[in-house]
Amino acid sequence: MSELKNDRFLRALQRQPVDVTPVWMMRQAGRYLPEYRASRSKAGDFMSLCMNPEFACEVTLQPLERYPLDAAILFSDILTIPDAMGLGLYFETGEGPRFKKTVRTAADVDALPIPDPQKDLGYVMDAVRTIRRELNGRVPLIGFAGSPWTLATYMVEGGSSKDFRQAKALAFNEPETMHRLLDKLADSVIAYLNGQIEAGAQAVQIFDTWGGALSHVAYAEFSLRYMQKIVDGLIKENDGRQVPVILFTKNGGQWLETMADTGATALGLDWTTDIGIARQRVGERVALQGNMDPTMLYASAERIRQEVAAILASFGSGNGHIFNLGHGITPEVDPERARVFIESVHELSASYHSQGDPE
Amino acid sequence: MSELKNDRFLRALQRQPVDVTPVWMMRQAGRYLPEYRASRSKAGDFMSLCMNPEFACEVTLQPLERYPLDAAILFSDILTIPDAMGLGLYFETGEGPRFKKTVRTAADVDALPIPDPQKDLGYVMDAVRTIRRELNGRVPLIGFAGSPWTLATYMVEGGSSKDFRQAKALAFNEPETMHRLLDKLADSVIAYLNGQIEAGAQAVQIFDTWGGALSHVAYAEFSLRYMQKIVDGLIKENDGRQVPVILFTKNGGQWLETMADTGATALGLDWTTDIGIARQRVGERVALQGNMDPTMLYASAERIRQEVAAILASFGSGNGHIFNLGHGITPEVDPERARVFIESVHELSASYHSQGDPE
Repeated sequence: MSELKNDRFLRALQRQPVDVTPVWMMRQAGRYLPEYRASRSKAGDFMSLCMNPEFACEVTLQPLERYPLDAAILFSDILTIPDAMGLGLYFETGEGPRFKKTVRTAADVDALPIPDPQKDLGYVMDAVRTIRRELNGRVPLIGFAGSPWTLATYMVEGGSSKDFRQAKALAFNEPETMHRLLDKLADSVIAYLNGQIEAGAQAVQIFDTWGGALSHVAYAEFSLRYMQKIVDGLIKENDGRQVPVILFTKNGGQWLETMADTGATALGLDWTTDIGIARQRVGERVALQGNMDPTMLYASAERIRQEVAAILASFGSGNGHIFNLGHGITPEVDPERARVFIESVHELSASYHSQGDPE
Repeated sequence: MSELKNDRFLRALQRQPVDVTPVWMMRQAGRYLPEYRASRSKAGDFMSLCMNPEFACEVTLQPLERYPLDAAILFSDILTIPDAMGLGLYFETGEGPRFKKTVRTAADVDALPIPDPQKDLGYVMDAVRTIRRELNGRVPLIGFAGSPWTLATYMVEGGSSKDFRQAKALAFNEPETMHRLLDKLADSVIAYLNGQIEAGAQAVQIFDTWGGALSHVAYAEFSLRYMQKIVDGLIKENDGRQVPVILFTKNGGQWLETMADTGATALGLDWTTDIGIARQRVGERVALQGNMDPTMLYASAERIRQEVAAILASFGSGNGHIFNLGHGITPEVDPERARVFIESVHELSASYHSQGDPE
């Protein structure tokens, strides 16, 4: 593998000094980019884009051609695992993801296989290898998976949901069945992420999109517990480098302390949490990633710069900040506003860093 | 006015001793009740139900006929104020509320009148008087309004929204315009709630449904600040009794301390916050209302009782807890599960109270 030319992202995750704060955006390869829309119509649909390693590589690299981003993230979907389990993922226009089969009983759970990353999710492993080759050491590549709870909500509901009543009713009424499902998903995620790491992912992020819909107690029992299992089961070092793990629970701002207790390298923050207060709460245990409101990208360039400055000031001096949005960039954003965001982070953060100085 | 026979709710709000923990449910007069659905089809549609004081009274009292609830809440909608401002509220089936006119410019804001409660919202004042008369002192009546920020999101977007991009873009790009709108809404809410109090509401709740979609800093600037203005502007005492104010910011669990600083009597909690931790954080300054996940009402009777017990244990002994759901009860709930919830609160909370004992 070629030497890494820009290691800001990995250094910041390890809370090591950097010259400027690294930045990437959740869903940076996405519909707001005209070149992405072109690739997608070439490929046919979203899943064809994910399942073809050449297309997946092409769209993964698109935002890096445009912007001075400090990391690439594998273009894929969080629902590849349940799809590989045989549930039949498909997308209805305007409806979000759907599954042909749902998982609602102990027998349904028992019938689920644990997908083999090479055999059942080979297209993802191929995509990781292709992207690493094409990146040629420009920036690190992030692999990812959905959290077991998040995957379980889609599998039980059969798709998206507003209140997760089927998934929660299963968790409340048959906790053992839900725990068996979550445990199987945790094992699947471990195998899948370790496969991505072996194929070349240099950091991994766990997207716990729906953990924040749980109560304080249910979050610990049904979501965090299985993210802990994943953190424990992941390959710690590859290619002579540590492999950082980022946990991101949307709406999880109340639970940062227990998230840090998992031993994750970094926590992703949505925009409802003040990053300075978060830093005080978790201390030196983890790096923090985030956390501008993605809707801020509909504001003026000047206002975006102001917000970047405010978040940098709230984090303050010292190491361990990876700038990001608090959630994915939305399809209607003007790509030039994304540029303002990314460039402002580098420009305005320099004064908070003095790389190489002994602390 | 007739003497109040059950004052548990008002006593708990003032953190005074009670025999059992009082309980009510957000949206307790709602579609999960067959008698509500019957009234609604008689009335024609949702707004006809709201705008007719006899119908509004009828559905307000329905859950009290079924269950031993400790408070009634005015049947109405949070969007009566923007409707009275001339925006033309209507409901599309399955689409939620809509406005014929939106508010997006300084000129739009300037053109908005501050509704006169008696003249422009007389149907609500009449409903409050009718309900008070028909309640005949059984339990106290809660009045309510939406928070200025929450109302503003609907007015700027023209209806519901997933990410509030129009409302946020206005707040980010033209903060002065947004502040004038919010200030006008705060004045309108003050007049409206004071009207409800004079008509007979014995406590009021401010529903800040969308404050939790803001960043930490933006919440203070665009939502909390105007709820503070409302708390300051409300009638403090009526009919020889204090008039408690409950602030409820959905997804506001990170901001309880600043919410308590407003001088509100109580804070409403959604289910993501542990009520025991919340109590430690806000101390003796406010009562706490909440906070069972409404989805728990899809669980078994036994599981519901378990959850009620766990929330009571987390709050612990002492005064100042009003039991509620963490958000509105949903239409598909079996009314018998709601009964289990309500009866469990009374039954399981007795051991935490010893009414009248000196502290």
